[in-house]
Amino acid sequence: MAIDHLAVLGVGLIGGSLARALKRKKYCRRVTGSGRHQGNLEKAVALGVIDDFHLNPAEAVRGADVVLLATPLATTGPLCRALAPGLKDDAIVTDAGSAKMSVIDAARAALPAQHFRNFVPAHPIAGTEKSGVEASFAELYEKHLVILTPVPETAPAAVERVGAMWRAAGAEVVNMPAERHDEVLAATSHLPHMLAYALVDCLARMQEREEIFRFAAGGFADFTRIASSNPEMWHDICLANRESLLRMVDRFGQHLEEVRLAVERGDSARLLEIFSRAKHARDEFGRTRPPRARRDDHE
Amino acid sequence: MAIDHLAVLGVGLIGGSLARALKRKKYCRRVTGSGRHQGNLEKAVALGVIDDFHLNPAEAVRGADVVLLATPLATTGPLCRALAPGLKDDAIVTDAGSAKMSVIDAARAALPAQHFRNFVPAHPIAGTEKSGVEASFAELYEKHLVILTPVPETAPAAVERVGAMWRAAGAEVVNMPAERHDEVLAATSHLPHMLAYALVDCLARMQEREEIFRFAAGGFADFTRIASSNPEMWHDICLANRESLLRMVDRFGQHLEEVRLAVERGDSARLLEIFSRAKHARDEFGRTRPPRARRDDHE
Repeated sequence: MAIDHLAVLGVGLIGGSLARALKRKKYCRRVTGSGRHQGNLEKAVALGVIDDFHLNPAEAVRGADVVLLATPLATTGPLCRALAPGLKDDAIVTDAGSAKMSVIDAARAALPAQHFRNFVPAHPIAGTEKSGVEASFAELYEKHLVILTPVPETAPAAVERVGAMWRAAGAEVVNMPAERHDEVLAATSHLPHMLAYALVDCLARMQEREEIFRFAAGGFADFTRIASSNPEMWHDICLANRESLLRMVDRFGQHLEEVRLAVERGDSARLLEIFSRAKHARDEFGRTRPPRARRDDHE
Repeated sequence: MAIDHLAVLGVGLIGGSLARALKRKKYCRRVTGSGRHQGNLEKAVALGVIDDFHLNPAEAVRGADVVLLATPLATTGPLCRALAPGLKDDAIVTDAGSAKMSVIDAARAALPAQHFRNFVPAHPIAGTEKSGVEASFAELYEKHLVILTPVPETAPAAVERVGAMWRAAGAEVVNMPAERHDEVLAATSHLPHMLAYALVDCLARMQEREEIFRFAAGGFADFTRIASSNPEMWHDICLANRESLLRMVDRFGQHLEEVRLAVERGDSARLLEIFSRAKHARDEFGRTRPPRARRDDHE
């Protein structure tokens, strides 16, 4: 088998789906889980997602060839410190966080240099608005992108091994500098989530909220679907990618102000120009997306 | 039959779907169409959506019991002036515009007082991102809301007749003051469209647009779907509902600034509070929507 022993720290939608995919492909012999809640880990064993578990991260990673961190972004540093004593010399550690610069900083500070060489920052661009091991499924990553953001210290062999693992789960793997990843995801994922949360909360705090929501239609439902995503996770992501996100918010704010001014001034030509250009770009985007990705994936 | 002769000015998705629904229910004997493009009207006859047509609005409405304006908002005034000479004394005129105050002002200025009494401002909250008579279908309004916004001059019998017509097409009908309609729709429909257009255009104008869109996933697709809507129509709506929309944009802007500050200051508790409240409200909204409306309707 390509991986003899995989440790998954955080057995939820993301970690559970990778474990399922690799087991189904017989890419991995044994999966050990870890997490804060014993009940969840017992459920994961019962579902056949993992073979066994340890609540102690250092015990969970002992002997593992590959370690996947699939826990909230803010836990990266403490978790790396906790698991490091259990790592075998050549263990590869990788993660699945939606922001990469902060993960790299945390892992670099928390892992001994010999282990940080084998740390491969990664972000599978897949998910659903559901969470938890019950929501995990082997096909989650099929035809989805996984972005790897190695740093100068990262061993090429470790990057290659993590890439091969994700390809075995059905994903397409691309490499990108972490700075670039964080900018791109701020634009296409983190900012839209922030806008959707802000809009729904804005309406929810209006006195007439019941009436307002009653008259909302399908456009509103689509637009705000991402505001149903896990608030802890997204608050984590927004803080972890703070700098890129703030730059994008400000950029968007300038743009929104342009549109606002066109409305205020009754500048019909300008407004039509902006809306038409946006429709063209959105139609292009719709045409070029792979069909599998159209329905059930989020970020 | 409840309506002997219906005139539909603008035979596209909205007007065509109402004609189809009323014909199927045998609620209406004859439908005459009108519009700018003869080819489209010939297609509508061939599809059985209308029985005949006139390019001249005054001719199209001659003898009609009920006249539906289903043309862009900005055309309301000129069209009312053009059709008025053809109206029979007790003809009822109604519309389907997404903003109501501006439609009322335009109709009041353009129609003789005796006809304005029988003008019933209406807004069916239904639609898809497609347009044109080919996209029309009889079930479009089933279980959707239609808002009527009569003014003090409006004859109650006219309101009742227009309400009955929409109910015959399967819709649920509610009455509401026009000011209120415009505020509610600014919040749930016009602002989201403006935000979606602004975001997509913002990203489309970034140098790296191809890469950015390549890494966008399902959350982005949902969030921006409404930016594929007809830009002419939406530019019209934003200008027609300018005042309510600007108030909502400013309200949203203050809210976004609160979220931005929480991110900038790393105010974890505040950010989590906002995101959690939004998720709760969005989940509630998802639970209370009628199932039919979940998939294919826009506004």
